[in-house]
Amino acid sequence: MSPTAGQVIKCRAAVAWEAGKPLVIEEVEVAPPQANEVRLKILFTALCRTDVHFWEAKGQTPLFPRIFGHEAGGIVESVGEGVTELQPGDHVLPVFTGECGECLHCKSEESNMCDLLRINTDRGTMIIDGKTRFSKNGQPIYHFVGTSTFSEYTVVHTGCVAKINPAAPLDKVCILSCGICTGLGATLNVAKPKKGSSVAIFGLGAVGLAAAEGARLAGAARIIGVDLHSSRFEEAKKFGVSEFVNPKDHEKPVQEVIAEMTDGGVDRSVECTGSIQAMISAFECVHDGWGVAVLVGVPNKDDAFKTHPMNFLNERTLKGTFYGNYKPRTDLPSVVEKYLNKELELEKFITHSVSFSEINKAFDYMLKGQSIRCIIRMEE
Amino acid sequence: MSPTAGQVIKCRAAVAWEAGKPLVIEEVEVAPPQANEVRLKILFTALCRTDVHFWEAKGQTPLFPRIFGHEAGGIVESVGEGVTELQPGDHVLPVFTGECGECLHCKSEESNMCDLLRINTDRGTMIIDGKTRFSKNGQPIYHFVGTSTFSEYTVVHTGCVAKINPAAPLDKVCILSCGICTGLGATLNVAKPKKGSSVAIFGLGAVGLAAAEGARLAGAARIIGVDLHSSRFEEAKKFGVSEFVNPKDHEKPVQEVIAEMTDGGVDRSVECTGSIQAMISAFECVHDGWGVAVLVGVPNKDDAFKTHPMNFLNERTLKGTFYGNYKPRTDLPSVVEKYLNKELELEKFITHSVSFSEINKAFDYMLKGQSIRCIIRMEE
Repeated sequence: MSPTAGQVIKCRAAVAWEAGKPLVIEEVEVAPPQANEVRLKILFTALCRTDVHFWEAKGQTPLFPRIFGHEAGGIVESVGEGVTELQPGDHVLPVFTGECGECLHCKSEESNMCDLLRINTDRGTMIIDGKTRFSKNGQPIYHFVGTSTFSEYTVVHTGCVAKINPAAPLDKVCILSCGICTGLGATLNVAKPKKGSSVAIFGLGAVGLAAAEGARLAGAARIIGVDLHSSRFEEAKKFGVSEFVNPKDHEKPVQEVIAEMTDGGVDRSVECTGSIQAMISAFECVHDGWGVAVLVGVPNKDDAFKTHPMNFLNERTLKGTFYGNYKPRTDLPSVVEKYLNKELELEKFITHSVSFSEINKAFDYMLKGQSIRCIIRMEE
Repeated sequence: MSPTAGQVIKCRAAVAWEAGKPLVIEEVEVAPPQANEVRLKILFTALCRTDVHFWEAKGQTPLFPRIFGHEAGGIVESVGEGVTELQPGDHVLPVFTGECGECLHCKSEESNMCDLLRINTDRGTMIIDGKTRFSKNGQPIYHFVGTSTFSEYTVVHTGCVAKINPAAPLDKVCILSCGICTGLGATLNVAKPKKGSSVAIFGLGAVGLAAAEGARLAGAARIIGVDLHSSRFEEAKKFGVSEFVNPKDHEKPVQEVIAEMTDGGVDRSVECTGSIQAMISAFECVHDGWGVAVLVGVPNKDDAFKTHPMNFLNERTLKGTFYGNYKPRTDLPSVVEKYLNKELELEKFITHSVSFSEINKAFDYMLKGQSIRCIIRMEE
């Protein structure tokens, strides 16, 4: 039993008071976990593009003050009523989507889109009582995707907490909470390339590089990176990308370029940009008869996916995935083991590291396109 | 060795002299098979919508005189040079698409779209020499999809001939040459519904009913038929269709109607009409997380499949299939066995039967929407 169990904890958190304004490290109050919740001591967190997107609050209803952060590793400090599957001291990864274990999605082997705990970017409170666990001088501070890991302590629904092997270094495996699993799982769990096959990856950001890492793990013989920034190719080689296409370098559509390079199309493709044109190209560049394209990147609200239906009739498959089809609690422990077995390489994703007080630097690195992942160390 | 081997055979064939005009039973000459070809004595053939479509020749380059027909059962009369896998007396089903066994598609477990023998509706000759094997008074008569089974004898590439169990009644299993396998395989090989699941079938013609039969065989608990003709529901019940939706009866899109009936969507859908609107509905009516939609019906040249990409991102899958993903030579024998084991029911597809001299009646039945399959008996 932790000495702080049942108490309000005062700790440091990086609060976003306004859209697009630098976060401010504040002393906040973190209430104890309620039923089916746990309170976590966050040791390491990382910045993901999604944090930046909602911090900028362009096109969404702004919800401030808010504590962002959803890629992290920590230790359970205390547990709420009825929590039996986690206990203080457990090493965990909080995840922005959850696994209640009870709904049709959780019971389906095919889905990870839990009805109860599926990501909800509009919600700023805990689902059990619609209240926040964070406050400062009595003012509530909103949560973000149920994780809010830019705080020394946070409260999370147990369904959003993966218990992992305590031997795993949290400053590395914390990046499995979101982007890396999203790309890795898109390839390993959904595209499922065979050994010796060809895979095209659209977008060589963190998610795309993780998709390439998945293709490398699956033994793909050719991994073709597609990106509008040719400078990304050099870094991408570390992730197994063996060939590179910049659509800007060609007059014909990139799907035709890829079809010519591969005698009719790649065996698999994974789209990690969210651009509707890239989605269409990613689908149309797979080989007839067996090609599978997987969509990962999140599109704009008004986008329309459009293709000639014969592209399907010729035995191509198009699938989408969310968080790489990983069920957070069930599947994350085994991804951590893949890292511990030295199969999955995480170090190459981590290009920067800052202390918590320097968290705004992590935003700068990402906005300038300099970082893949920047780790934020909660202990200075 | 057949006494007619190596000889020109004179026999009866139903010749289409002009687009849309009744076929004429003529005495034609059928040349011996060349290398990699076999000559078949056709015993039973059936009429498929595709014959009618190319006989009407609306929108295609007309190719006449031509002998149509591609669903049939027969016996090998003689074989051409180098043919070792078939011999006179073998019971066979000719198929409109083929399996050369050598190309990347044939070597892939996932594809049946043989590079060499894939369907080509524009070709009216044999691929080995670009000539026809049919003639009348020296005038060549064109082939249709490499089968031309509206003739007592026909010549077919060996890659388009499935050797089957001689115990199988050819007047029943002949319908496996095209439409029935197309629908059946779309469900069993591609949609793969689980026992107890829900399946929507768009279009309750022969292919759609075969798709429903596949869902019945797979143990689907709910088979929802969708058709613009409510009169089709009664017949469809024999094929396991348990519920019926006519899109004309509803103001809201049929995908919304189906989602309401099924708590969010069906587990699988199979589109057998070729209407682009039905394709979109078939995709959008499957459940998020695990839904799979399969396109079977052939679209128009200028159609565009259009949907919001989030429908994919929410873990839906869209696939197309050709001939139910069956490889003709490898897979058809086992479908015939399914019939012999009384698992697959074929009798209910056969609504009419005519003698060869009455072949134009089979066209009438189909054009009036009265038949599912009409068997044409070559021996009067």
